[in-house]
Amino acid sequence: MSILPKVLKNLIEKLTILPGVGPKSAQRMALHILQYKKAQTLELAHAMNDCIENIITCAQCKNFSEQDPCTICSDPSRNQKTICVVETLSDLISIEQTGVYQGVYFVLSGHLSPIEQIGPEQLHIPSLLAQIESGGIEEVILATNATVEGETTAHYITSHIDPKVKITRLASGIPVGAQLEFLNSNTLFHAILERKEVT
Amino acid sequence: MSILPKVLKNLIEKLTILPGVGPKSAQRMALHILQYKKAQTLELAHAMNDCIENIITCAQCKNFSEQDPCTICSDPSRNQKTICVVETLSDLISIEQTGVYQGVYFVLSGHLSPIEQIGPEQLHIPSLLAQIESGGIEEVILATNATVEGETTAHYITSHIDPKVKITRLASGIPVGAQLEFLNSNTLFHAILERKEVT
Repeated sequence: MSILPKVLKNLIEKLTILPGVGPKSAQRMALHILQYKKAQTLELAHAMNDCIENIITCAQCKNFSEQDPCTICSDPSRNQKTICVVETLSDLISIEQTGVYQGVYFVLSGHLSPIEQIGPEQLHIPSLLAQIESGGIEEVILATNATVEGETTAHYITSHIDPKVKITRLASGIPVGAQLEFLNSNTLFHAILERKEVT
Repeated sequence: MSILPKVLKNLIEKLTILPGVGPKSAQRMALHILQYKKAQTLELAHAMNDCIENIITCAQCKNFSEQDPCTICSDPSRNQKTICVVETLSDLISIEQTGVYQGVYFVLSGHLSPIEQIGPEQLHIPSLLAQIESGGIEEVILATNATVEGETTAHYITSHIDPKVKITRLASGIPVGAQLEFLNSNTLFHAILERKEVT
């Protein structure tokens, strides 16, 4: 690779910090933007700086925000007595897109993972528990993923919350539009156990 | 998406200029770098600026370079009488990695494509022809891709070069390590026609 100009080699190397970008695609990206997107690349670099410098973490929900508290936490029209606990901001976005949830959130930024040394502190769980203990919370929706790690994280939080607070978990069952024959048996198992009476 | 901070939304939008990055992966990238790579992102932004501002095009070979002529064109140990014409810098890198080529290059930055309005001018072909006409060139290796567009481009260049100059094309045949049964018949067709006597 010694034939590449130093600044280009440096750019290729730095592009690999992006998730899913290895040396080959980083090279392809660098050549592409150099050839076709010079002006837009300067804008992208500016947007990166701007984002890193202006984004803070909302002290209440730990979400990325330009202000503290964030727009959701400070929205008077939202129900502050219901907290929906999610693993990532992407999950929060997915839930917001349904339009059905009107409470506030708490973003863990991951799940418990002893192997990766991610414990309750790294996920701000003590801060979540303190918010719940300080009173006024009527329901905690544990919307962590339906994976082993997500379930473990939800279980840990459940075991540390005052039993008087209502704790819920998203319903598990058959995805809308799914065909039974293609579902894994675990999903079907839960769907049968949690079947609902037709009213 | 109105729940996202403005600077974050802007970053996600700008990230889609990268090839192969759509809105979904741009969102994943932005959240990933915000969460785990703040310092490196500033370095990436700096590397982008640096690259755009310092990379120029070598007047002789049209390759990206920090200097004009570039390190290859100005290398006295390379054979200046042989020009290898490639479509992209990636192709140049691939050829350099073989270590077998000691001449200089000419980077077209694409191939002829009337539909995309890419004609000889856009590929700097007049400049290539002028270099060849000015004399001293003994061989022109047309290393464009073995695709319809690559062949068309090679054909166009061939028809415009003084017939006294030796023009060559990369050998076509069976890739090393390939199994005959999995090759397309076109490749096999050429491999049979261009078979070599065992010496």
